Amino acid sequence: MSIAHSSFYNMLKVPEHQVAGHLAIDGKLGPLVDDSGRFYKPLQGDGRGNKELAFYESFSSDTRVPDHIRKYFPVCYGSQLLEASNGSGLLHHLVLQDIVSSHRNPSIMDVKIGSRTWYPEASDNYIQKCLEKDRRTTTVSLGFRIAGLQLYGGKESGYWRPGRKEVQSFTVYNVRSILRRFVSSNSSIGNENSDCSFAPSIYGGSAGILEQLLELKAWFEDQTIYHFHSCSLLILFDKESVSKGSASVPEIKLIDFAHVVEGKGVIDHNFLGGLCSLIKFVSDVLSDSKESSIKDCVESEKPGICTDNGNCQ
Amino acid sequence: MSIAHSSFYNMLKVPEHQVAGHLAIDGKLGPLVDDSGRFYKPLQGDGRGNKELAFYESFSSDTRVPDHIRKYFPVCYGSQLLEASNGSGLLHHLVLQDIVSSHRNPSIMDVKIGSRTWYPEASDNYIQKCLEKDRRTTTVSLGFRIAGLQLYGGKESGYWRPGRKEVQSFTVYNVRSILRRFVSSNSSIGNENSDCSFAPSIYGGSAGILEQLLELKAWFEDQTIYHFHSCSLLILFDKESVSKGSASVPEIKLIDFAHVVEGKGVIDHNFLGGLCSLIKFVSDVLSDSKESSIKDCVESEKPGICTDNGNCQ
Repeated sequence: MSIAHSSFYNMLKVPEHQVAGHLAIDGKLGPLVDDSGRFYKPLQGDGRGNKELAFYESFSSDTRVPDHIRKYFPVCYGSQLLEASNGSGLLHHLVLQDIVSSHRNPSIMDVKIGSRTWYPEASDNYIQKCLEKDRRTTTVSLGFRIAGLQLYGGKESGYWRPGRKEVQSFTVYNVRSILRRFVSSNSSIGNENSDCSFAPSIYGGSAGILEQLLELKAWFEDQTIYHFHSCSLLILFDKESVSKGSASVPEIKLIDFAHVVEGKGVIDHNFLGGLCSLIKFVSDVLSDSKESSIKDCVESEKPGICTDNGNCQ
Repeated sequence: MSIAHSSFYNMLKVPEHQVAGHLAIDGKLGPLVDDSGRFYKPLQGDGRGNKELAFYESFSSDTRVPDHIRKYFPVCYGSQLLEASNGSGLLHHLVLQDIVSSHRNPSIMDVKIGSRTWYPEASDNYIQKCLEKDRRTTTVSLGFRIAGLQLYGGKESGYWRPGRKEVQSFTVYNVRSILRRFVSSNSSIGNENSDCSFAPSIYGGSAGILEQLLELKAWFEDQTIYHFHSCSLLILFDKESVSKGSASVPEIKLIDFAHVVEGKGVIDHNFLGGLCSLIKFVSDVLSDSKESSIKDCVESEKPGICTDNGNCQ
């Protein structure tokens, strides 16, 4: 562990593309990033920070975790004492890979996985608080909830980033609609008839989101090391790269491990069930996009003109 | 619907192999069976009976349910007015296939699947009641709980059928141990070193329990028609047939559909997660039994003699 010099500290800034969690703005405590691709997350004082650090330490040295699964987790560089973003002085920060830094104009979705966010060992109070929110959001009904997102619409329209209250009020219908808008060329204009034209290149294909989710699922069907409560799956990609046919690959990453507990020989059925539900949603969007490409836009309400790749305009 | 004649009623009897639920003994209301392989389940008065009947009616006519999945559900022959077992007079009964009747000395396990037994639309009171029991049993931790069982130990020792209180107190450790004892030749003698000698023929093989569970799982990964809350999976087989090398096939059947609700386009992630957890447990027992067969019983605490098929004596 090292203490950051103030010259180093000056280079730290508020993350531009953080879609959920505490933001380091208005004198509040939140994560910071630097220009070298590192993400500094303040260790929360109630023990959660230390639990997350302990998870990263355990995970990085656990030889039972297969190599092809490690790519779904941010690299951890230990912890560091830094000036906290709220001006409260030096504070331990978890030093992580800044996942977003390799993307220019990332579209990002933060999906909290599981039909419950509490863990069996938690206090009754904590369980009731989580249960109430799990029932109010889509956590119980869908097995996951969207915790935050931003969609890049292009140079002119910029980002669509719904506020926290809007995100927390998403219904099953909204979630399905957002998973379509997320991969549509007309996502930024509030169009309900999302064209899903990027679905084949983002969700589909051998390196697409669906294949990555299926690889993660296969691990969760077998691994009994960890139970990932209240953990998020980030889905991110660069729409501009995709539009230009560049080889930018869509990514999924797991984040937020403050509530990970030992699996003790039991699979994480709570995470796995929610993951399977998300997989079904993503796979439905992909099937629909293929069907609508075949059907020459019959599903679009207005008669449309279809391009060769099935986009409806 | 027909009213049973009293001569017909006289043929009805209390099921010999019912391991969970209300028993039709001591003047209580419970299901009855006849000699023709039918099972008569009284329609519970609080609407649950009618909900279960409605499920069977919907299920039997739903063309979206593939034929290879129907075999995992009892056949339903509608409903019938019968003298109730508690002497309260005529009562509607659901007429079902008596799953157990084709087995001579069945070993049976009733496994309630899902990490929650309540459904989102239920009342707060009902949810709290279920949640309390789900936390007290292995439902939350394992994604399933054993709701009842009987193990046939042979002509001399007969059946081991733990009482309701004992079953409700099963821990994760107990469940793992019972899934081993369930397929062991020394199951009836309270031996902790279960030999799992029947695991390859009951859990394994192309027609074994594991393959059937995997077939069911594949359907649950895709089906969005029903959510099966508080539903049980029966695992049953005839140990004597297996010992004698007969072709009796182990079976799984889903039962108890009073709390099934519409899936509305979402998979039953709660059931699926629990099912995957059970699959992992069964598959662990199977792997262990294969390993111990190779290792010549090194896992057994006492030095043992191994037969050709890997049984440790």
